[in-house]
Amino acid sequence: MKKRILCIALTAIASGIAGTALAQQKPEEVIKYRKSVMTIQAWHMRPMAAMVKEQRPYDAEVFAYNAQVIGQTARMKAEAFAPGTDKATDAETRAKPEIWSEPEKFKQALDRFQAEAVKLVEASKVGSLDAVRPAFGGVAKACGACHDTFRTK
Amino acid sequence: MKKRILCIALTAIASGIAGTALAQQKPEEVIKYRKSVMTIQAWHMRPMAAMVKEQRPYDAEVFAYNAQVIGQTARMKAEAFAPGTDKATDAETRAKPEIWSEPEKFKQALDRFQAEAVKLVEASKVGSLDAVRPAFGGVAKACGACHDTFRTK
Repeated sequence: MKKRILCIALTAIASGIAGTALAQQKPEEVIKYRKSVMTIQAWHMRPMAAMVKEQRPYDAEVFAYNAQVIGQTARMKAEAFAPGTDKATDAETRAKPEIWSEPEKFKQALDRFQAEAVKLVEASKVGSLDAVRPAFGGVAKACGACHDTFRTK
Repeated sequence: MKKRILCIALTAIASGIAGTALAQQKPEEVIKYRKSVMTIQAWHMRPMAAMVKEQRPYDAEVFAYNAQVIGQTARMKAEAFAPGTDKATDAETRAKPEIWSEPEKFKQALDRFQAEAVKLVEASKVGSLDAVRPAFGGVAKACGACHDTFRTK
């Protein structure tokens, strides 16, 4: 019963706060949206990773822009993993069923990612590589932890 | 010559300010990113359209969130249309060659979209349907104008 209430609550978060009429969205559309969010986040992680690894010079403005994108798109995850989108006729997904069968655990993983993203945005305002390095590591680890648990290989 | 300088300037905007090492990005990766940006923008336009058309109740918070996403992702367009990404081996694109052969005209279309997106974000803070309706129309028209000119059917 507790789990069911949480499921309903998560649905409410996804459909209400985040703001799209999920009832009208087909699973394949949600999966397409989900993959797009992932593509954009991966794209914007890359230049930050290169700076942290000192493969390209640290540029505070560029780093801050990419950090902001991670912060802004973190909120999209709730909609992107709407209930009923574990599979679709016309779309493939690597999302594991545990996302929806263990919603509390998944919510913890999302909350961790969002909290680390907030820290990254804050750190990016300092303007030094020393400030952003640990924050970037925190986000990267949160990404990896969620992928390890909730994404198929 | 003027056009060539503008091309270089646009490349600099795309690779420098927006912040991804484009030299390392394959055209198919940029096209994937571009389509993801479009998917996300279309997704977040939908609930606003439904409110403006009074197909669902106006919710100021939900509208403002979706408006913010449009405002935030508007900046992604420069990277998403990086030079050299008119075609790729492993990706299809509906982007017309005019995007890169008429960069001044394309930049005007992007600038218009970004300006309308800024107006939408501002209007969404007012908290009334009357305030957001014309601003939403402005964004929608800017989307349509660019698609009509620079996207194949």
